[in-house]
Amino acid sequence: MRFTSEQRLDGGVLERAFTLGEIPGILWTPEAAAAPAPLILLGHPGGLERMYPRLAGRARGCVAQGFAATTLELPGSGQRPRDADAEQARADLRRALAAGEKPADEVVDRLVLPLVDRAVPEWRAVLDALLTLPGIGGPVGLAGGLIAIGVRLAVVEPRIAAAVLFAGSYVPRVMLDEARQVTIPLHVLLQWDDEGNDRQLALDLFDAFGSKEKSLHVNMGGHTGVPPYEGDNANRFLARHLT
Amino acid sequence: MRFTSEQRLDGGVLERAFTLGEIPGILWTPEAAAAPAPLILLGHPGGLERMYPRLAGRARGCVAQGFAATTLELPGSGQRPRDADAEQARADLRRALAAGEKPADEVVDRLVLPLVDRAVPEWRAVLDALLTLPGIGGPVGLAGGLIAIGVRLAVVEPRIAAAVLFAGSYVPRVMLDEARQVTIPLHVLLQWDDEGNDRQLALDLFDAFGSKEKSLHVNMGGHTGVPPYEGDNANRFLARHLT
Repeated sequence: MRFTSEQRLDGGVLERAFTLGEIPGILWTPEAAAAPAPLILLGHPGGLERMYPRLAGRARGCVAQGFAATTLELPGSGQRPRDADAEQARADLRRALAAGEKPADEVVDRLVLPLVDRAVPEWRAVLDALLTLPGIGGPVGLAGGLIAIGVRLAVVEPRIAAAVLFAGSYVPRVMLDEARQVTIPLHVLLQWDDEGNDRQLALDLFDAFGSKEKSLHVNMGGHTGVPPYEGDNANRFLARHLT
Repeated sequence: MRFTSEQRLDGGVLERAFTLGEIPGILWTPEAAAAPAPLILLGHPGGLERMYPRLAGRARGCVAQGFAATTLELPGSGQRPRDADAEQARADLRRALAAGEKPADEVVDRLVLPLVDRAVPEWRAVLDALLTLPGIGGPVGLAGGLIAIGVRLAVVEPRIAAAVLFAGSYVPRVMLDEARQVTIPLHVLLQWDDEGNDRQLALDLFDAFGSKEKSLHVNMGGHTGVPPYEGDNANRFLARHLT
């Protein structure tokens, strides 16, 4: 991991861009912290530059609670090389959604499964690197991003102690079995009228999670309409479980 | 309406018992309020004496936010005369639940519809009486109780501006059409593994509500396991809409 730039944001936030191998990422830490800060992995749908304003806003919320936060570019997004199969699957998914159809399971599988397989080791590698830095200490929380990546991380990465998941993207049905293996506390967000998601699949996924503590917050307003106060709810959930 | 007793509780809360005709009720108000307090109608499943400790706790939470709160005994509960048909229907419902069966729609209808028809005018009458008191002023919020009563009140009582509904009891299917007429902001609580309720019916009801702003908070822990922080969430919802 190599830090490539740093700047100070309002509110005592130090923002550092880094690369992990070829993968760009960002780390936000409190400028003055008494104890090692729990680290929140901020997920997003891909496209770090496009997502930057919202990610920085979420990161400020984390730092205001005494957490550090980080994010990574997804495989095949932003400045990273495209994968022809994934691009084809993404086009197929968009075509189905634009036609008002439910995408076929095999399209979802073709798009999401390879992405999960590639992204999860990268997120784990960033954890390995960041947890050696002074000022950052466990436990680790996860917040947002493609929910299939969150599910896999929650199963395979024991350093993640709690997760906020946004049920706003398709999950391969084969991953419902994986969801049953999740046992950490979960806070799941679902937009009831999400135009790009399958409500029943999201409810089936929530039902499948093996966690004893899991909650689901449903709101209206379409895919991008998560109310601002849900950010506060998510932060309170993370604070309950990480501090 | 006649006040029958009063006491001061910790936290600057004045608690007054009253009767409205033959119906016992309780009013909680801030001892010192600068402006007329919005009024919260606190619902419960019936049995005012048994429910008193939890109701008083909820009322304190309301008063701490600058609200007044009130509750009424339900028809056929507590010290109020029993209705033979309702008792029969209640026994039939309990028998089905104890046997692990879904109660027949006609049993739910026999139990709930007459109760809604009787209770709703009583709650409206208590509103008429309380809103004439100094220190209490609109808007009015509703929180908890049998959800079928809440649905009817939300439709017919224009003074109610926002409602917290607990999807923890059966709603007659014929009332799904009524739910479509609800337009006020709703905050709905659902226990995912509620042993005495039908999850799919609760989800259908949430879907049916006509409100542009509606949210659903799902938790684990069975009928009585609503996490304590959901009380804070409900109070924040009421504060957003009533102040």
